[in-house]
Amino acid sequence: MGVIVQKYGGSSVADVEKIQRVAERVAASRAKGSQVCVVVSAMGDTTDELLALAQKVSAGNPHRRELDMLLTAGERISMALLGMALHARGVEAVSFTGSQSGIITDGAHTNARILEVRPVRIHEALEKGKVVIVAGYQGVSREKEITTLGRGGSDTTAVALAAALDADVCEICSDVDGVYTADPRIVSGTRRLAELSHEEMQELALAGAKVLNAQAVEFARDRGITIHARSTFVSGPGTLIKKSEGRELRISGVALDSEILVVRGAPLEVLQKHGAWPREAWDDRAIVSLENVHGLAALLADLRGYEVSNDLAQVSVVGAGIGASKEPLDRALEALEIQPRSTLVAPLRIAFLVPRDAARDCVRRLHAEFIERS
Amino acid sequence: MGVIVQKYGGSSVADVEKIQRVAERVAASRAKGSQVCVVVSAMGDTTDELLALAQKVSAGNPHRRELDMLLTAGERISMALLGMALHARGVEAVSFTGSQSGIITDGAHTNARILEVRPVRIHEALEKGKVVIVAGYQGVSREKEITTLGRGGSDTTAVALAAALDADVCEICSDVDGVYTADPRIVSGTRRLAELSHEEMQELALAGAKVLNAQAVEFARDRGITIHARSTFVSGPGTLIKKSEGRELRISGVALDSEILVVRGAPLEVLQKHGAWPREAWDDRAIVSLENVHGLAALLADLRGYEVSNDLAQVSVVGAGIGASKEPLDRALEALEIQPRSTLVAPLRIAFLVPRDAARDCVRRLHAEFIERS
Repeated sequence: MGVIVQKYGGSSVADVEKIQRVAERVAASRAKGSQVCVVVSAMGDTTDELLALAQKVSAGNPHRRELDMLLTAGERISMALLGMALHARGVEAVSFTGSQSGIITDGAHTNARILEVRPVRIHEALEKGKVVIVAGYQGVSREKEITTLGRGGSDTTAVALAAALDADVCEICSDVDGVYTADPRIVSGTRRLAELSHEEMQELALAGAKVLNAQAVEFARDRGITIHARSTFVSGPGTLIKKSEGRELRISGVALDSEILVVRGAPLEVLQKHGAWPREAWDDRAIVSLENVHGLAALLADLRGYEVSNDLAQVSVVGAGIGASKEPLDRALEALEIQPRSTLVAPLRIAFLVPRDAARDCVRRLHAEFIERS
Repeated sequence: MGVIVQKYGGSSVADVEKIQRVAERVAASRAKGSQVCVVVSAMGDTTDELLALAQKVSAGNPHRRELDMLLTAGERISMALLGMALHARGVEAVSFTGSQSGIITDGAHTNARILEVRPVRIHEALEKGKVVIVAGYQGVSREKEITTLGRGGSDTTAVALAAALDADVCEICSDVDGVYTADPRIVSGTRRLAELSHEEMQELALAGAKVLNAQAVEFARDRGITIHARSTFVSGPGTLIKKSEGRELRISGVALDSEILVVRGAPLEVLQKHGAWPREAWDDRAIVSLENVHGLAALLADLRGYEVSNDLAQVSVVGAGIGASKEPLDRALEALEIQPRSTLVAPLRIAFLVPRDAARDCVRRLHAEFIERS
C-alpha cells in the first residue's frame, strides 16, 4: 500500500471549520486505500502572535532556544485538533511532535537543518492503519533540544518525510492553487505554472517567492521527489515541481525579497548569533535574509562599525538558461528603468538590488517584459 | 546551596506584564543564593480556550490522547516566555517540558498519576547555576505518550519536584494569599488559615476546594514536604501545609464540589474510558468527579440504563477530629436547614449531597455555624 504525504499550511487549518474540512480531505485520501501521513503548520496567525509575545517579553531580543520552545506550541495545537477531528469522524489517527517523528536536526535554533529522519513511530502507526499527523517546522537536536526549521519549514518536514517514507506523492496544500509567475498581489497579469524543475523552484524560493520553502525544494531535488503544490479547498491541477528536462530558455517567474540586509565585511559568527546567515555574497558584501532574525535591533547593534544597508530589496527573474546568455540581462536592465545598486547573474537567475520603495514597480516591469510579452 | 521550588498558577502568568513580574520575583530568589526551580501553569484562560476548541472540533467528545497533546501546548508557551523574560534580565534560564524534566506518569490520559521523577536535566542545569523552568501539569508515560495530570496538576508537579530535588521549600504562588475557611465568593466571613495539616488540606481539596490539588497534598504528606501557599504579587505570611500535630477538634473550612455525578452500579471501565473515576463510593453508589471529563454527553450516553443524578453537589466540613464524635454532625445537620440526600462521615470530614441549586446556601450556613461562631 502506497504512502501519501500531505502538508497543510497555516491558512488551511486557521479555524475549527477549516480543520474539519482538512479532516474530510484526509479521510477521503485514506478511504482510497493509501497510508496517509499529514504534516501541519500552526493555525493561521498563531506563529506571528507567539512571536509578538516573545518580542514583548524580551524587549525585542528573544532568547532563541526559548523561542523554539515557544513556537513549537503552534503545530502541537493544530495537529492535536486535526487528530480529534479525524477521531470524531471515526478515522483512527495519532499526532506526533517533530521529536516523536524522529526529525533530527542540527542545533541552530530558529533556523535548524534536518540531518536525518528516523520515523520509527510513524511507520508503526501507519502499519496499524492509522492516519499519522506530524507537527511541521520542528525537530530535535542530538542534544535533545527542541529546534525549528525557519519560516516555511513545514514544507521541509513534508519533503523529508516523503523521502524517509518512500512516499508516492508529496502534496503541499495551501490557499493558492500552485506556483505563479509572480506575486499576484504585486502583478496583475500572473499565470499559474503547470510544472517547473526543482532547480527553478529553488531559485524562485531563494529569491523570495513564499509559495515553497527553498530547503524543502533542495531536499526534493536531492531525493528525486516530485512535489505537487495545490489548493487545499479547490480542486485543480496545481503545479508539479519535478526533475528538470530540456535546456531551452524558459522563464519561470519574477520574485521579490524585501526582508534583507546588505552588509559589508561582517563576521559570520556575529550574523549566526542572531539567526542570520548570508544567503549570497559578492566579495565581502553579503545579502542577509532577515526571515529568521527575531532580534533585529540587537543584530544591528552588533553590526555597528560595519557598512549595513537596510533600505534595499532584491528582485529576481528565474528561469532555465536565463544566465547562459547576455540577452536576458540586457532585456532586464532595459525593462527596470532604474539603475540597480547591484546585479547578480547565476545559471537560473538574474537578480538586482534596488531601493526597497522602488522594488514592487521593478517586479511589475520585469514580469511585463519576461512573462506577459512572451 | 539549597533548592527552592516555586509554582506559579495561571493567573500569575496571565499576560506579558505578569510574566515580567514573576521573572523579577524569581530573579530575586536566585539573587539570594538559592538554586531555583520554577513550575508554571498555562497563561490565564489558555487551557479553557484550548478545551473549547477541542470540544468544538470533536462534537463534544475529544479523543483523550490528542487532548493531552493539545493542552500541554499551554505550559510550553508560558514557560518559554518566562525563560525569555529571565534572559532579558540577564538571568540564565532554561525551560523543560514534563518529558524533558523526567516526570514519568501512568498512561491515564487527562488524569495521569506521577509514578516517578528522574530530574537528570534539571540537576545538570541547576548545577550550572541556571534557573530551571518546568512545565506544570504534564508528564510522559513509559510508552512515551504525552500525558496530563488533571486540573490543578501543576501543584502536583511542584511537590513531586520538591521531593525529587530534596528542596528546602515548595512555594505554591497564586492570586490568593493562602488557604481560606471557605470560598470568599460564596461566604463573606471567611478567614485565612495560618497553617493546617496535610490531611486536612487533602480533605478540603478532595471536597472541592480549588486552592491546592489533592494529589499534590498527598504527595507532600507522603514525602514530609511543607507546602507554602502564598500570593505571587502581595507579600504576606500565606498558609503553611505541614505535618499534623495534636488531636483536638479544629475546623479547617467548608468546601463545595458542584462538578459531580452520582451514579449507581456503573462499571469502572465505563467511567475510566471517559476520564471519570469514582472519588468516593457507598456500596454501589459513587460520587464521580467531572473535573477531568471532557466528553460529558458521551459519558452520559454510555451510562444509559444506570441510575445517574446530575443535579447534586457535595458540601463538606473539614477539620481534625470532626468525624470522631457525633456532635459536629448534629450541629451540621441542624445548620443545613434542609434534609441532605446523603450524609458521609470520615475522620477528617463530614459531607452532604444536596440539590445543586441549594448548595451555595448550605456552604454559607455551615461556614456560619463552624467558622464564624467559633
